[in-house]
Amino acid sequence: MRSMETPETPDPTSVPESAGDRAPKPGKAADEAPVTGIAAQDWATASADPHYRAAVVDLLGALAYGELAAFERLAEDAKLAPTLEDKAELAAMAAAEFHHFERLRDRLAEIGEAPNKAMLPFKAALDDFHRQTAPSDWLEGLVKAYVGDSIASDFYREVAARLDTDTRTLVLAVLDDTGHASFAVEKVRAAIAAEPRVGGRLALWARRLMGEALSQAQRVVADRDALSTMLVGGVADGFDLAEVGRMFSRITEAHTKRMAALGLAA
Amino acid sequence: MRSMETPETPDPTSVPESAGDRAPKPGKAADEAPVTGIAAQDWATASADPHYRAAVVDLLGALAYGELAAFERLAEDAKLAPTLEDKAELAAMAAAEFHHFERLRDRLAEIGEAPNKAMLPFKAALDDFHRQTAPSDWLEGLVKAYVGDSIASDFYREVAARLDTDTRTLVLAVLDDTGHASFAVEKVRAAIAAEPRVGGRLALWARRLMGEALSQAQRVVADRDALSTMLVGGVADGFDLAEVGRMFSRITEAHTKRMAALGLAA
Repeated sequence: MRSMETPETPDPTSVPESAGDRAPKPGKAADEAPVTGIAAQDWATASADPHYRAAVVDLLGALAYGELAAFERLAEDAKLAPTLEDKAELAAMAAAEFHHFERLRDRLAEIGEAPNKAMLPFKAALDDFHRQTAPSDWLEGLVKAYVGDSIASDFYREVAARLDTDTRTLVLAVLDDTGHASFAVEKVRAAIAAEPRVGGRLALWARRLMGEALSQAQRVVADRDALSTMLVGGVADGFDLAEVGRMFSRITEAHTKRMAALGLAA
Repeated sequence: MRSMETPETPDPTSVPESAGDRAPKPGKAADEAPVTGIAAQDWATASADPHYRAAVVDLLGALAYGELAAFERLAEDAKLAPTLEDKAELAAMAAAEFHHFERLRDRLAEIGEAPNKAMLPFKAALDDFHRQTAPSDWLEGLVKAYVGDSIASDFYREVAARLDTDTRTLVLAVLDDTGHASFAVEKVRAAIAAEPRVGGRLALWARRLMGEALSQAQRVVADRDALSTMLVGGVADGFDLAEVGRMFSRITEAHTKRMAALGLAA
């Protein structure tokens, strides 16, 4: 996924346009992240470390299930669309998520891992997230599509810098090949302009989405040692729990700025 | 869509493997159909006839909405999947239908027609079909995916012979680029083998699906003169209402044979 165009608030974690290149330069994906030894290695070399391997399998499993769950939710939310055109837009996002899922699943199979087994540990957290945040109308669905797309995009960028070159290429390619949520921004802005009261309700909604996302993310971090350690650059560089908090902070901040740009006090 | 491999019952309307070629030979798509003047013309020539043009706009609109509705239903039915793998299979079908929708929609835009306006007349019939045939469990969902894919495939083939070369190329390309339902056949066969009683229930279900499909199709035929006239080869060759009945008969027969091959007395 690619985060939305909201020129008023440059995304603090944004990367140059070339981020989706098939072979991005090591360590360029997120300025804050240290260039680790792993980031200069390919999968064959990096995966010799069983902790790193386990972490990547977790990551790919979590992303794959996340995309599959997003497909399901977007397809469901497409039903709320007021027009056929709107329905088609959300369906297009859903189809794009499904193709991300396919790539991640195929990569798991390629490295000799059973995709379903890799996804399963993340099913409960992602299903719960979507259950807790089922939109009650079309605008809530749009805000969720946008927020979800943006948070996922931020997370992909954060994590990309900590990955071996092959895995990073895949993650950045998945990140790069959409941007479907931009239509959501226009629609939400127009709705708020037409009926300013709507903004208050949607701002609460966006806050609830972020809260639920963080709470499920914490749950995953607590459960999955190898993944969490890698997320904070721990495999090669020593574990630093505070860095998990900082990563969540950066993602939350970017979210807050995007919401403000959208006319929603977050 | 491509109909399923059921070698025991060669589909009476089946076409050679080359059916999906970008430039199939005129009039070869369905043996029963007469080679009309239209079938030898390209869109620019054929569309000079306003009746033919209206019929093709109807056809593309009906197919486009059919694909969008199928996307929605398959994505919904994917929720019933017992495993992540099964879910992914149905989601893959849904994504494929969405891409068919995109091609048909884009073609409408290309010939200067508003896709939504072209789709709208068919919304009620297709929505009603899906509302009347919401699967109550995973196996019903699979049978529906298979039956729907096969009927659509038969219909695409029937209609292809009556189209100008450009429209036919599009219709055959959409027909050709899937075949996802084959996994459904295996699963249904295995379920019946494990629990023969299931066969009786699913046979009833398949009959209901076909009945509902025919009833909605009749409704469309009654409503849309230009489309119906074209479907029976009427634009260039004189209207023949009995031919509508024969087309429905051929599709029903093919369905019956497929169901028998699946172990379901239809």
